[in-house]
Amino acid sequence: MMSAMHTPTLYRQWADHYAQAIHSGALPPGERMPSLRDLMARHAVSLSTAVQLCRTLEREGLLEARPRAGYFVRPRRPLASLQEPQPSAPDVAQYVGIHQRVSEVLALSQRYPAKVNLSGSCGAPSLYPGAALRLATQRALRAQPDIFSQPLAMAGCAPFLQALAQHALDAQMTLSPDELVVTHGCTEALTLALRAVAQPGEVIAVESPTYYGLLQILESLGLQALEIPASPHTGLSLEALEMAARQCPGLKAVAVTPNLHNPLGCVMPDAHKRQLLRWCQRHDIALIEDNTYTPLYDAGPPLAAIKAWDDSGQVIVCSSLHKILAPGLRLGWIAGGKWHERIAMLKYSQSRPNELLPQLAMTDYLSSGALPRHLSTLKRTLRHQREQMADAVDRLFPAGCRFSLPPGGMSIWVELPGELSSLAVFHAALQQGIRISPGVMFSNAGRVDHCLRLNAGLPYTREVDRAMHTLAQVIEHTLNQAPAGRGKATHA
Amino acid sequence: MMSAMHTPTLYRQWADHYAQAIHSGALPPGERMPSLRDLMARHAVSLSTAVQLCRTLEREGLLEARPRAGYFVRPRRPLASLQEPQPSAPDVAQYVGIHQRVSEVLALSQRYPAKVNLSGSCGAPSLYPGAALRLATQRALRAQPDIFSQPLAMAGCAPFLQALAQHALDAQMTLSPDELVVTHGCTEALTLALRAVAQPGEVIAVESPTYYGLLQILESLGLQALEIPASPHTGLSLEALEMAARQCPGLKAVAVTPNLHNPLGCVMPDAHKRQLLRWCQRHDIALIEDNTYTPLYDAGPPLAAIKAWDDSGQVIVCSSLHKILAPGLRLGWIAGGKWHERIAMLKYSQSRPNELLPQLAMTDYLSSGALPRHLSTLKRTLRHQREQMADAVDRLFPAGCRFSLPPGGMSIWVELPGELSSLAVFHAALQQGIRISPGVMFSNAGRVDHCLRLNAGLPYTREVDRAMHTLAQVIEHTLNQAPAGRGKATHA
Repeated sequence: MMSAMHTPTLYRQWADHYAQAIHSGALPPGERMPSLRDLMARHAVSLSTAVQLCRTLEREGLLEARPRAGYFVRPRRPLASLQEPQPSAPDVAQYVGIHQRVSEVLALSQRYPAKVNLSGSCGAPSLYPGAALRLATQRALRAQPDIFSQPLAMAGCAPFLQALAQHALDAQMTLSPDELVVTHGCTEALTLALRAVAQPGEVIAVESPTYYGLLQILESLGLQALEIPASPHTGLSLEALEMAARQCPGLKAVAVTPNLHNPLGCVMPDAHKRQLLRWCQRHDIALIEDNTYTPLYDAGPPLAAIKAWDDSGQVIVCSSLHKILAPGLRLGWIAGGKWHERIAMLKYSQSRPNELLPQLAMTDYLSSGALPRHLSTLKRTLRHQREQMADAVDRLFPAGCRFSLPPGGMSIWVELPGELSSLAVFHAALQQGIRISPGVMFSNAGRVDHCLRLNAGLPYTREVDRAMHTLAQVIEHTLNQAPAGRGKATHA
Repeated sequence: MMSAMHTPTLYRQWADHYAQAIHSGALPPGERMPSLRDLMARHAVSLSTAVQLCRTLEREGLLEARPRAGYFVRPRRPLASLQEPQPSAPDVAQYVGIHQRVSEVLALSQRYPAKVNLSGSCGAPSLYPGAALRLATQRALRAQPDIFSQPLAMAGCAPFLQALAQHALDAQMTLSPDELVVTHGCTEALTLALRAVAQPGEVIAVESPTYYGLLQILESLGLQALEIPASPHTGLSLEALEMAARQCPGLKAVAVTPNLHNPLGCVMPDAHKRQLLRWCQRHDIALIEDNTYTPLYDAGPPLAAIKAWDDSGQVIVCSSLHKILAPGLRLGWIAGGKWHERIAMLKYSQSRPNELLPQLAMTDYLSSGALPRHLSTLKRTLRHQREQMADAVDRLFPAGCRFSLPPGGMSIWVELPGELSSLAVFHAALQQGIRISPGVMFSNAGRVDHCLRLNAGLPYTREVDRAMHTLAQVIEHTLNQAPAGRGKATHA
């Protein structure tokens, strides 16, 4: 037995050696690994040990195999390098406020003008069809001269509801226009969904980390956020959810972003989506799905919303055209499933129907057939920008930084080494005119305080590149100032 | 003593005789009363009895004196004819839901297409500067080509906030732009105000009757509405409020519409406004003021908001440009006083900032100086329409109907005779293609179930006149069907 264990130990030992060389920069990205023959000779190991060494590093994302050329150091630390969360039962003591923290971050962001704003989750204005929407707006103004003087009909704007129902087909959702309600962005949709299914004091399960806007809504409604660990690769941990639900028998809803999660960027596998849906159906727990980023997936055929499998109205899907078409418009929508009537009433009582003009302009745009072309360009550009930004993180940020390269959208999620505080980095970066979103905004549970979100929605200009250099220095500096035990080293 | 009482009894006897003749239509509106000489001869009474008879009927609003022409039957029953509420302590058992009732009325209203819609509280499209706002919108589109592609700044639209602060001066409020938040209409403003000051389960005092939208918001937020009787002449009864507050020590806010109350149309005297404010300050109870209709007052110099006297931030003022400029836009605002920070946070977390285009267009319009001219025309038109509709109520509706003729705005509030159910009238009228707002929407307490609100915002066309004839018949018919004891007669 001891002898059988020997070979793995040997390949692991050499794998660690090369991993260290790669992390330290001694073997820079793109560099060719010694060939199998070289490795055998240099370290006096068997062919199978040399093969296992390389395959292990490949699996760990440090090497890539190029056909007929051998192994090379991967140009950047890949998605896989983000750490998996420890599976654990949720800590109920984590029900603490996010408001104060998020409000402080937002207030500071307002106070200090940022030369380079990497804090958002939004494409640059040039990426959106602003001119087409302006023309569509002008057409709508001409077509409906009374548009500002007519009171709004309670039932909403029928052609826009129709266009949304058609748009939802892209994520494999078959929705009738009269099960939709137009909202002020996905934010109002989420607010209405939560108001519809839960009373103050009740508990909602959310991914950890999750979009800070969701945590703000929960807290402002007096709801409790129960954070369920999410994998940076597959999203919400269903095992952790089941454990949590046993602890919280009154769980009212699970709120998830299965496609292009914000901030992780990951996609929940279809099998998990179905499993989560069945679980929610079985326990009659509302499944609130944020579907905003789905159309920005660019690594394969279009993703399906969980709602696509919903045969019982258990899913409330919330979405918006904000991220894909018009960051300056607040055109969101909600399909409330079996809570539709209550949601429609809450929308009416909370803010009345949305104004017509943006809905008519958007209907005009959507029915022009321009969306697929626009989306294809948008996704190509965002992919390029994500790669450039990830490359910069990889080149410039200190060793020990891990990051995602998501299959769509505009966010890069970075884990800083050790327990480095992203809030310290946020403050220091803001002093240099650079705004980022610190991890502390995305979880009450302190699980991602050492992470930060960068916006790859902007073109990777020289100015952004300079900002990335500065940010790298800020992180390096903060790292050096971190008290012993908080950096990478485990002993002082 | 008995002899001294004789004369009053006599004039009262003849006054009742003539009042009955007027109510029955035997003496129609506009008809000349017999002269004093004729009365003396016809009824063998003294001159002083004849004079007292006429003065009594004049005081009771049935006659009017025309100089050098004598007394005439008043063309309509005047404002004073609406009944004062009985001063009484509130009944805590009145904390029942309005949702279901309002929702049913609204749903029915959606289902049956109304040929004539008298249910709103809104002017006809022709009364609003739609063309000017369209041009202003086009200018804003040209000036800001990126308007749909730029994400919205958290701080809102500075020029619009500035314009609103200036507009607020008309109601004698001195507000800084940075104590204002733009909202989706007054509805969202009221929602935010209530979310800011109270937690679910807590109690808010409201006028009874009050705007049904407010009752809906309260119920949807899980707040308790404590209805305080309001006089149709001076609004909220401060005595009743004080009695109620002693019963409800945890009262969190008082929500009022002091100027052109919806639905009563009355105006709270300035002395009451100041008294209410001081009372709220003394007890640290939030004073939520709906100021939407203030600019539509046309019976004297502009009215002041309660906020005008607020020296401690106790008043949260909610308003909107909806009723005065653009029923098709949802441009509301809120000045939150000492709750401003919390309100700004709640707005951000609930629906993010409002879109820019309508704000920029409205800023353009407001800064053009066109508002005073527009308001003056609007008020003149609305007054004329109110008078025409009140005249129709007076001419056509059965005896025993009382109604308001408010000093501004577009609502006519009608009390039906006895305990006639406005809901029955609503249903019957809807069958005839006429939509009204039944009193049952405006109170949980059942105090105004026999009332209804009519919209005088529409031009008094032949179609509206026909609808008023039909409505009168519907009321007459419902009255005849009313069970014994519910109509005017006190015995079967």
